[in-house]
Amino acid sequence: MLEQLREQVCKANKRLVTENLVTLTWGNVSGISEDRKDIVIKPSGVPYDELTPEQMVIVSIDGQVIDSPLRPSSDTPTHLEIYRHFPNANGIAHTHSRYATIFAQARRSIRCTGTTHADHFRGDIPVTRALTPHEVESGYEHETGRLIVETFRENQLDPHCLPAILLAGHAPFVWGPCPDRAMDNSVALEAIAEMALHLELLAPNAPGLEAHILAKHQSRKHGPDAYYGQTNTP
Amino acid sequence: MLEQLREQVCKANKRLVTENLVTLTWGNVSGISEDRKDIVIKPSGVPYDELTPEQMVIVSIDGQVIDSPLRPSSDTPTHLEIYRHFPNANGIAHTHSRYATIFAQARRSIRCTGTTHADHFRGDIPVTRALTPHEVESGYEHETGRLIVETFRENQLDPHCLPAILLAGHAPFVWGPCPDRAMDNSVALEAIAEMALHLELLAPNAPGLEAHILAKHQSRKHGPDAYYGQTNTP
Amino acid sequence: MLEQLREQVCKANKRLVTENLVTLTWGNVSGISEDRKDIVIKPSGVPYDELTPEQMVIVSIDGQVIDSPLRPSSDTPTHLEIYRHFPNANGIAHTHSRYATIFAQARRSIRCTGTTHADHFRGDIPVTRALTPHEVESGYEHETGRLIVETFRENQLDPHCLPAILLAGHAPFVWGPCPDRAMDNSVALEAIAEMALHLELLAPNAPGLEAHILAKHQSRKHGPDAYYGQTNTP
Amino acid sequence: MLEQLREQVCKANKRLVTENLVTLTWGNVSGISEDRKDIVIKPSGVPYDELTPEQMVIVSIDGQVIDSPLRPSSDTPTHLEIYRHFPNANGIAHTHSRYATIFAQARRSIRCTGTTHADHFRGDIPVTRALTPHEVESGYEHETGRLIVETFRENQLDPHCLPAILLAGHAPFVWGPCPDRAMDNSVALEAIAEMALHLELLAPNAPGLEAHILAKHQSRKHGPDAYYGQTNTP
Repeated sequence: MLEQLREQVCKANKRLVTENLVTLTWGNVSGISEDRKDIVIKPSGVPYDELTPEQMVIVSIDGQVIDSPLRPSSDTPTHLEIYRHFPNANGIAHTHSRYATIFAQARRSIRCTGTTHADHFRGDIPVTRALTPHEVESGYEHETGRLIVETFRENQLDPHCLPAILLAGHAPFVWGPCPDRAMDNSVALEAIAEMALHLELLAPNAPGLEAHILAKHQSRKHGPDAYYGQTNTP
Repeated sequence: MLEQLREQVCKANKRLVTENLVTLTWGNVSGISEDRKDIVIKPSGVPYDELTPEQMVIVSIDGQVIDSPLRPSSDTPTHLEIYRHFPNANGIAHTHSRYATIFAQARRSIRCTGTTHADHFRGDIPVTRALTPHEVESGYEHETGRLIVETFRENQLDPHCLPAILLAGHAPFVWGPCPDRAMDNSVALEAIAEMALHLELLAPNAPGLEAHILAKHQSRKHGPDAYYGQTNTP
Repeated sequence: MLEQLREQVCKANKRLVTENLVTLTWGNVSGISEDRKDIVIKPSGVPYDELTPEQMVIVSIDGQVIDSPLRPSSDTPTHLEIYRHFPNANGIAHTHSRYATIFAQARRSIRCTGTTHADHFRGDIPVTRALTPHEVESGYEHETGRLIVETFRENQLDPHCLPAILLAGHAPFVWGPCPDRAMDNSVALEAIAEMALHLELLAPNAPGLEAHILAKHQSRKHGPDAYYGQTNTP
Repeated sequence: MLEQLREQVCKANKRLVTENLVTLTWGNVSGISEDRKDIVIKPSGVPYDELTPEQMVIVSIDGQVIDSPLRPSSDTPTHLEIYRHFPNANGIAHTHSRYATIFAQARRSIRCTGTTHADHFRGDIPVTRALTPHEVESGYEHETGRLIVETFRENQLDPHCLPAILLAGHAPFVWGPCPDRAMDNSVALEAIAEMALHLELLAPNAPGLEAHILAKHQSRKHGPDAYYGQTNTP
């Protein structure tokens, strides 16, 4: 089973390039096993076109690298913390995609002003506070994961229907029901961020999407009443 | 004859990718038979590179799927309503192309400020009002089509020489004398939207295109006096 | 000799696509024979990937199509008028390239604020006034050419070292010592227009390039003291 | 040894195209030999796709072209001056990449507002003053190099952890521990410039990156405590 996950994760990492979401080696994708005991993640600093499924690093949910000569992504502790607390996240993508990162640097959430947004995310994309010096010292990447979980909890947000967050001054983390769907959501996030930024410049007072239209686009694509695509998706 | 239309519609859907008008599966193209009894449309949620003419779904003008194992695009009722009321629309393209969608989210029409615009559209690209909660409940996609027709009628616009509209908070619908020409108009719309947005930022008080130049560019390309290209087009 | 020119012009037209300067069929390139008696130009409305040297249309300097089944570009009278009055223009390119067109629609010249600009154009890129209704009626494309010549004469500009102009509400015309160099200048114009627009948004009060640096970059690349490249260029 | 450097420099110059950092022939990359007696640099004005390792020009550190039929890049004296004064610069890239050039034309430094920036550059990217008429006359490219060195010295900046500068009204110069890493830093500079410009438009008062996070991202990637990638880098 982990072999299959390695292939999925490898393929999803290569999509970072074909979807234009990555510059140099600024991005990584992971997936979790069905029993949620192990994750599979990109090795650190390896170029995407050289990646093979065998190189994908297996790390146990408590952070032990299992039988690999390669280091996992330096962001691994952040991925692990998200998997521990968000039970519907089965794949996670971290990128520095241009427009989502601009909002992260502006420390602004991305408002939901259109159906493209509503098709993937139920509401505004949240942004975290900055990490404190103490948090950075005591384990930067692990504390980043804790901050993501904290932001969802304190704002009473549901990570299942809002599968993305912006790290202040850094970049987005995005998840989904599998690594490939986490990538779909990353593609969607970048598209809506690009539109949101230009919308702010063109019409800063543009209204948010009407609640009844947002709800319609969510239910059309997700949940028991979905009728988009050839099969209903959870 | 429907075989030929299936090929045209399949090819036009694949152009969504090569013309950079589509992200994920956010777009679909259809065409109508000469007797206007059936339309051919993309199946819902199928990736563009896998599309074959056989997969294109035939739907009767009153909305019955004819002999297909695949669901048609969830936007089919909108396409049907446009075909029913706009007799010169023989092909329709729906995309979430970036800049046209930004204007839809800004709920602003696109002003005609240049000849690029005038070559394809006689005047400003209109934007609809938002659908009411009642309309969304009573049949979202069908009501979207009705709203498009209403917007043209109430503003006394001619869909023949103004083959595009922006849905408030959503994205554009574009049509033309065949599926391929609907795609040409979609390409043109995205180009003029990109220029219009940057023009608003650079020179918000830029004048509209002079009426005599707009008229000249329309007549140069369309109608009995056209002299652009190798054959005159209707 | 015209055979060679046909090949050059065909190749330069295909560069419109590879350089990302063209959408649909919105652009054309021409060249003039050494004796300046004939020009070779793209046929109207033909897709770039289908173009062959044989299809290029020969038109005499007084506007007669010579032995061709295809219509020349509808912009041919504009090209002819430029060739008649600008003796150093041996190739001309007309595009609707995005950012240059935005300045044309804004009816603003492009200020020289950097050495990238100075390497190709000695000073600001001028913009014309709009054509009058009378001019449009009496021969739109021919009058467009006359207006270009008028704009250079009235502003005492030298078309040899300033090989580009923006048509108000329309798009740029660009020329050079051969069709390929006219294309180089079109590529340069689009690059400097893209930078100029974003510069206006970032720093509207940015100073113009210092005159001594502008002069240095011109002389480094052009004229008797040029030392850029492997051969000196006129 | 110089053969190997020629191959590295040739390959790095070709990356200018694949990384979308170059238009026409507006860019060049060089490298220096281990004994710092010779540099290898692109020949002037030669298209990138035609470049071969043999064509790369060897120039001694005091500026003598060694055994080459081709002229070196006209910017060679600038490269030499940087190598003479910055002992950790073993590769240098000069481009007119769009967004970095816009900041150079705006004569504004690029603020560090995110971790993408901090991963490559310890602090704001500086911008020079303009060259004086006297400096331009007495040796434009050499004086450009002197100005770069002067700007670092006067502002007490360390070129080792801040491997980039913007030339006022011109474009960036970027360096690194080898030609390929100089290219990596050029790619990073363009990405952060693009984000910085849009950030200024979206949120001109966005805070700088917290000092403790900047320091963390530097130490994570560079120096004795680095843990990013598969090997530690100097």
